[in-house]
Amino acid sequence: MMQIGKAAGRGRPAAAGISSLFAQALAGLRSEYFPSTAPAIAVALSGGLDSMVLLRLAHAYAREHGLSLSAFHVHHGLSPNADAWRAHCAAACAALGIGFDAREVSVEKGKSGIEAAARKARYAALGTMCRAHGVDLLLTAHHLDDQAETVLLQLLRGSGPAGLSGMDAANRTPALLGDAHLLMARPLLQAARADLEALAKEEGIDWVEDESNSDPRYARNALRHTVMPALGAAFPGFQARVARSSMHAQSALRVLLEVAGQDLERCLDGDAIDLAQLRALSPDRINNVLRHWFSVRRLAMPSTAWMDEMIGQLFSAREDAQMLVVHPECHVRRHRERLYLVPKLPDLAGMRDPDDEGIIDKHAQAFRWAGEASLAFPHYGGILHFDAAETGFDPDWLRAQPLAIDFRNGGERLKLAPNRPSRSLKAHFQAGGVPAWERTRLPIVSSGIDLLYAAGLGMDCHYLQQGAGRVALRWETGD
Amino acid sequence: MMQIGKAAGRGRPAAAGISSLFAQALAGLRSEYFPSTAPAIAVALSGGLDSMVLLRLAHAYAREHGLSLSAFHVHHGLSPNADAWRAHCAAACAALGIGFDAREVSVEKGKSGIEAAARKARYAALGTMCRAHGVDLLLTAHHLDDQAETVLLQLLRGSGPAGLSGMDAANRTPALLGDAHLLMARPLLQAARADLEALAKEEGIDWVEDESNSDPRYARNALRHTVMPALGAAFPGFQARVARSSMHAQSALRVLLEVAGQDLERCLDGDAIDLAQLRALSPDRINNVLRHWFSVRRLAMPSTAWMDEMIGQLFSAREDAQMLVVHPECHVRRHRERLYLVPKLPDLAGMRDPDDEGIIDKHAQAFRWAGEASLAFPHYGGILHFDAAETGFDPDWLRAQPLAIDFRNGGERLKLAPNRPSRSLKAHFQAGGVPAWERTRLPIVSSGIDLLYAAGLGMDCHYLQQGAGRVALRWETGD
Repeated sequence: MMQIGKAAGRGRPAAAGISSLFAQALAGLRSEYFPSTAPAIAVALSGGLDSMVLLRLAHAYAREHGLSLSAFHVHHGLSPNADAWRAHCAAACAALGIGFDAREVSVEKGKSGIEAAARKARYAALGTMCRAHGVDLLLTAHHLDDQAETVLLQLLRGSGPAGLSGMDAANRTPALLGDAHLLMARPLLQAARADLEALAKEEGIDWVEDESNSDPRYARNALRHTVMPALGAAFPGFQARVARSSMHAQSALRVLLEVAGQDLERCLDGDAIDLAQLRALSPDRINNVLRHWFSVRRLAMPSTAWMDEMIGQLFSAREDAQMLVVHPECHVRRHRERLYLVPKLPDLAGMRDPDDEGIIDKHAQAFRWAGEASLAFPHYGGILHFDAAETGFDPDWLRAQPLAIDFRNGGERLKLAPNRPSRSLKAHFQAGGVPAWERTRLPIVSSGIDLLYAAGLGMDCHYLQQGAGRVALRWETGD
Repeated sequence: MMQIGKAAGRGRPAAAGISSLFAQALAGLRSEYFPSTAPAIAVALSGGLDSMVLLRLAHAYAREHGLSLSAFHVHHGLSPNADAWRAHCAAACAALGIGFDAREVSVEKGKSGIEAAARKARYAALGTMCRAHGVDLLLTAHHLDDQAETVLLQLLRGSGPAGLSGMDAANRTPALLGDAHLLMARPLLQAARADLEALAKEEGIDWVEDESNSDPRYARNALRHTVMPALGAAFPGFQARVARSSMHAQSALRVLLEVAGQDLERCLDGDAIDLAQLRALSPDRINNVLRHWFSVRRLAMPSTAWMDEMIGQLFSAREDAQMLVVHPECHVRRHRERLYLVPKLPDLAGMRDPDDEGIIDKHAQAFRWAGEASLAFPHYGGILHFDAAETGFDPDWLRAQPLAIDFRNGGERLKLAPNRPSRSLKAHFQAGGVPAWERTRLPIVSSGIDLLYAAGLGMDCHYLQQGAGRVALRWETGD
């Protein structure tokens, strides 16, 4: 029989405690992500207080544990002091015997969205350096005050639990770093900035002040220099409580994702959502599962207002109604009791919208077949396969044809078998129950004059032969 | 086929738009909560800007829709200006022909927790006035800026989605108002304070400034007077975005509660949680369902640290281990593969803890039976039933006995049937698989000398008779 009383208090670590907090974080990262290897580590080094402290901590840890350590600096080409920062970083690394590299990025100052662009360029450069030096684990110096700022900024932007979750202690971000395997970690996420500063003073660490940090044009800096001091005066130690709030948001988000995954599995029928299953969910879970659907299909998340409007239309429409809702990256279509997410085709921007018959106006693309197993046609959103078959085209004949792929122009006719009538593609599609918008995405292949194959329907029987070694055409739509 | 583009922008309502926003809110409230009746409405009137505007809006609405309207004021006895506020409110109501009432509450100033105590007293007084005047719907003047403050305060306290949900547009709070039927609503929750002030100026509405609103000792006022202006300068219009964030939190919370309810249903086996079912859930859902369990059992929510510790112990203990975790309001017990929430008995504070044998030291309570179907013994945490039965005590004999209820003192022996041996209660409990802590909560009933009944085991056969009209004792543990 065990008894517990109150859990031990978890105050913020004192300056002296930061290196043990760092060592604990590293031990946790290694046992979770590198259980049987010694990861090559790098520090993202700006030259400011936070990353200079991180460099010192990582240096001591790497030496003690026999790990390789580098430091990477991003040189912001257009800044007047960029050379001085790089020199400061290089000198600090040289003094400690740490391998140093730097890359220059150029982001025009004064433009809107400059913060986001600079961030993107900075991480891309760090990813490049990690790959160049065989680094497995990139450490950044984000600390408790940064986390509180991030969460507060997300609140001020109207975010839900995903935004309020703040920064992860560790994650992989191929989109930012250009690398699916590189792990980025923030071992100081629980350390207060004041403690980092105390440690720097105790250890005689020099750092550079980034003058862009004092530029109140940037939203984060406005927060840092006006709001955070006011909060600190009225609510001492608020940063740790905001960070705790972000942990609750992370936990809530994990449950939401788990439930969304289960709900999506129940709702999906092939690629489409079964509306009867969707309707059985509560409104909040419908919203949750549809957002998850967009996410797993790697589409930009719609706004709250857009999603509300879409769901409203979805359930107010008659059961047999067709519905089309346009999203910047896709069409959401309802056909009978199924909901489809149809990504927009690339390069179709200039073309007219599909009409009721589902016809897209586009010039055909001529090509030749040289015996390939398949040919990709990205402008048509898929791959044409040439399968070996017992019913199909004579391969020698096919090689000799000046082939063309196209979306249908209307009026094309297809005869699938000698004993069946020649019918318009529209009639075939209607008979086969292919939704109108799917038809717009299904190309046809012709010999320049005669229709050979209509994706989703089949090959015209006119040139088909029986026998070993024939070639059958098959269209695979990519997402 | 329908198409939507961007949803119409939802800017903040202009001053002129506030009355239509108010009318929409009231129409929504009436159709949801009072579909077939005309609710009697009251305004909580402090005399400040917000509630004076609310009074004017409610007055116009009530007159147009033929509804009864009152205004209720809470007089803070100890404040030097309290009389002036009440007079201001009374005069405004007299000018508009609105019924007015006021109640005095006294909360000592300068004490810690004064804000919370004043709030509690204020709402209790409002509830009292609503009951006295037959009011169904109490309106308060909380607006968008209040909502943003509330959410921000919750973030600064480290809250999860429940706290970040902010204030509801409408709810019933029997704990605050002392009334389970009274609906409290906030029809101005989407209106910016600046717009309320503009409306007050346009309409020539006078209001009083509450000097306690300017006292920066109160956390909310510190936020209001130092942080909110800094935020407003750096992030214009942030209030509406923070409110949107709270709507996301509300939606997340509803999903969490729905999932918790489903998980609890799956995990519960009678009153206990089946650990095998619990173990099948993800860690976040375990946390979610256990919190929900505390909530449906109406126990104070444990802290994050306490819950983490409890769950850690729960799953690190051996399968056959017993476990006891002490919570201020209950014991959490594990017995074999079941988890029990055992509320602490009232009035047992001074007694020694149950020992291994599960004995609580307490004096017996003497009583007589006068033919009641049942007698409640709150100090023993339950009800003693006197059921009509064919095997039981002679009712006349039972009425004549000087009865006593007690927890067992150890050493009591019970003989359940003539052909079975007399055994100690402990032996009976062990044979019956009754967990040790359950034994401590099961009282015994004696005739002063002889044991008649042991809850959870049965009646001693010594005084039992067969035949119609006998009385059997049965103990029901209350929660």
